[in-house]
Amino acid sequence: MIYVTRRAEFSASHYYQNPSFTPEENRRAFGKCANPLGHGHNYTLEVTVGGTVNPLTGMVLDLKELKVLLEQEVLQLMDHKFLNKEVPAFAVKNPTTENIAVEIWNLLEPKLLHGKLHRIRVYETPDLFVDYYGE
Amino acid sequence: MIYVTRRAEFSASHYYQNPSFTPEENRRAFGKCANPLGHGHNYTLEVTVGGTVNPLTGMVLDLKELKVLLEQEVLQLMDHKFLNKEVPAFAVKNPTTENIAVEIWNLLEPKLLHGKLHRIRVYETPDLFVDYYGE
Amino acid sequence: MIYVTRRAEFSASHYYQNPSFTPEENRRAFGKCANPLGHGHNYTLEVTVGGTVNPLTGMVLDLKELKVLLEQEVLQLMDHKFLNKEVPAFAVKNPTTENIAVEIWNLLEPKLLHGKLHRIRVYETPDLFVDYYGE
Amino acid sequence: MIYVTRRAEFSASHYYQNPSFTPEENRRAFGKCANPLGHGHNYTLEVTVGGTVNPLTGMVLDLKELKVLLEQEVLQLMDHKFLNKEVPAFAVKNPTTENIAVEIWNLLEPKLLHGKLHRIRVYETPDLFVDYYGE
Amino acid sequence: MIYVTRRAEFSASHYYQNPSFTPEENRRAFGKCANPLGHGHNYTLEVTVGGTVNPLTGMVLDLKELKVLLEQEVLQLMDHKFLNKEVPAFAVKNPTTENIAVEIWNLLEPKLLHGKLHRIRVYETPDLFVDYYGE
Amino acid sequence: MIYVTRRAEFSASHYYQNPSFTPEENRRAFGKCANPLGHGHNYTLEVTVGGTVNPLTGMVLDLKELKVLLEQEVLQLMDHKFLNKEVPAFAVKNPTTENIAVEIWNLLEPKLLHGKLHRIRVYETPDLFVDYYGE
Repeated sequence: MIYVTRRAEFSASHYYQNPSFTPEENRRAFGKCANPLGHGHNYTLEVTVGGTVNPLTGMVLDLKELKVLLEQEVLQLMDHKFLNKEVPAFAVKNPTTENIAVEIWNLLEPKLLHGKLHRIRVYETPDLFVDYYGE
Repeated sequence: MIYVTRRAEFSASHYYQNPSFTPEENRRAFGKCANPLGHGHNYTLEVTVGGTVNPLTGMVLDLKELKVLLEQEVLQLMDHKFLNKEVPAFAVKNPTTENIAVEIWNLLEPKLLHGKLHRIRVYETPDLFVDYYGE
Repeated sequence: MIYVTRRAEFSASHYYQNPSFTPEENRRAFGKCANPLGHGHNYTLEVTVGGTVNPLTGMVLDLKELKVLLEQEVLQLMDHKFLNKEVPAFAVKNPTTENIAVEIWNLLEPKLLHGKLHRIRVYETPDLFVDYYGE
Repeated sequence: MIYVTRRAEFSASHYYQNPSFTPEENRRAFGKCANPLGHGHNYTLEVTVGGTVNPLTGMVLDLKELKVLLEQEVLQLMDHKFLNKEVPAFAVKNPTTENIAVEIWNLLEPKLLHGKLHRIRVYETPDLFVDYYGE
Repeated sequence: MIYVTRRAEFSASHYYQNPSFTPEENRRAFGKCANPLGHGHNYTLEVTVGGTVNPLTGMVLDLKELKVLLEQEVLQLMDHKFLNKEVPAFAVKNPTTENIAVEIWNLLEPKLLHGKLHRIRVYETPDLFVDYYGE
Repeated sequence: MIYVTRRAEFSASHYYQNPSFTPEENRRAFGKCANPLGHGHNYTLEVTVGGTVNPLTGMVLDLKELKVLLEQEVLQLMDHKFLNKEVPAFAVKNPTTENIAVEIWNLLEPKLLHGKLHRIRVYETPDLFVDYYGE
């Protein structure tokens, strides 16, 4: 098994709110992130795919294929978007780094043609990131 | 003369639009950045102050003082904000990296107690940044 | 399970010595690091906590809580300190990156209120780091 | 168990080709990487060794020893070389990041005197890397 | 005046040789870089353009335009190439970081439609870079 | 004119104190940095040399020569040292980033054989750095 990781970046805005909380509870739970006008990040996504090396190419998977998949399934949906308002999954749950990682797993896992999705890592900032292994 | 540079980060959202353009012209001029719901970035700010070394301390200026100034004049205004809607300067002009750099210069320059503001650098992403020297 | 990682930095000095070694043995074992006046590093700490996503917030744990914990348990003890002389654990064993990682695990693990401590990573320099998983 | 990781860099050139493919098939499979004159990268290698902490030193292994091993077994072979033409293993298989990682594992694993080789990570660029755990 | 900098990356191979030197002189002058099979780097290019802010857009220049220019004038010529053999300018002079920077200036300066080329910076590795200001 | 910059790293410890200040004044002026046991940093040094390109080599100066000079004049003096106690210049003035940059300029400028020293940049942390141009 070899694990291949490709990075991609996207820029998006978001905010955190629980509609069942009072404004005061939202501020306490989410601090500056509760601002409903939103704020933004340059997210860095790392997609890790595990597999065996194809002896014809020396590769686990075609990286151009993976790049197109990331473009079509993730970046078109999330890049330069307001996540709460434009990504259906985040109409009902907060676009936290945790939920973004799970959502990206769910978008990519069924579409991957070669290898097995191993890990989704999402950096909200260089100092904060989340890993999800699909379970 | 010694030049001291301090970095700070802030996360904000923005979009680009010229109200005198048609929607089609805005899309052509600003591409994905024209989305009026906004998108966001982790901005990195570098503030460079020039001065002579104070022989009592070995420093050009007190870095705690500079940190407080950045916090009060820039971060409280821009961090976790929608720049177009919450920063007055950007009600009438686009919050481009260029205009953000000029605005931060204008905010800091009159408040700096020691040394002389030399340069404001703003990174919108690690691959795109702007320098402003005050003229 | 989702794994959330937060980074923090601290600056400290240290040296390596085994009191049962001769000066020559210490120099051979530890090279430049044996200098008893010490030298220093900007350490980067990554704390990884695993847990399930709280559906009320979309988060594994409150990151402000984690930040306060890091501040109180680790940074107040180690930041801007001479580790051999000011951190009790390193009076009797070398403050190597390995031992620092284990010590930080031992400090944080009993105090973590939500989630389960998964990994402590400590970078001594960008080119040298250590991971500890608690066993 | 503690895992210690050391980074090293090397600069090399390579290209991708399957001699049983037609030129057109090579271009389709490998794109710009098929150029037989080669192109190059600054590769970053991370070697992770797992082991227990030696109580005499506070270390898993002597990092100077590891540095010498990396220099002798990997850098002398691959640094400033055309991998396809100068590294025997790549005479018959493509020097992909996957195959480079496996080759470095095979070079280092039998020579490591202390600890157990845990992972080889090779970055071809900051946005593309491969992990190999020896099986 | 505002200075806007955009980064781009390209991967290429090269070697250094002076045809009027003996092999021994080439080895002495250029060390490992004299290997005529070549070796490679991930070059990072920073292009800085100075200009005034267009009040209609808030920008010095259209960054998409600059991206296309970099793609057409620099990346198509140098990315995934053996610089000595495939870039005409380097048939007769060494593709050192210095000469690459000057060459990129000469390629871009006459084609820039808005603003004035201010600086070309080329990183051969993160630890070695060159700046050229056009004179 | 071309400007060539080479980076080097060194690890050292230091503290800040003005012997004519009271302990309370030292604490107020220097905060955590006043701890006389010291603390440390991984300093990153950038040395920039300006010159014309030698047409025989394509280079401004021999980088191996510069590396040896940095090693002999700066790293042997400051790497893995307690700056206040082991570097003569800092017996009488604080080893602030400002003073370190000036000191390194003074060490290197008279020894440089080719080109002209243009700038010394010293990073104390990735978020704080100082530039000195020799006057």
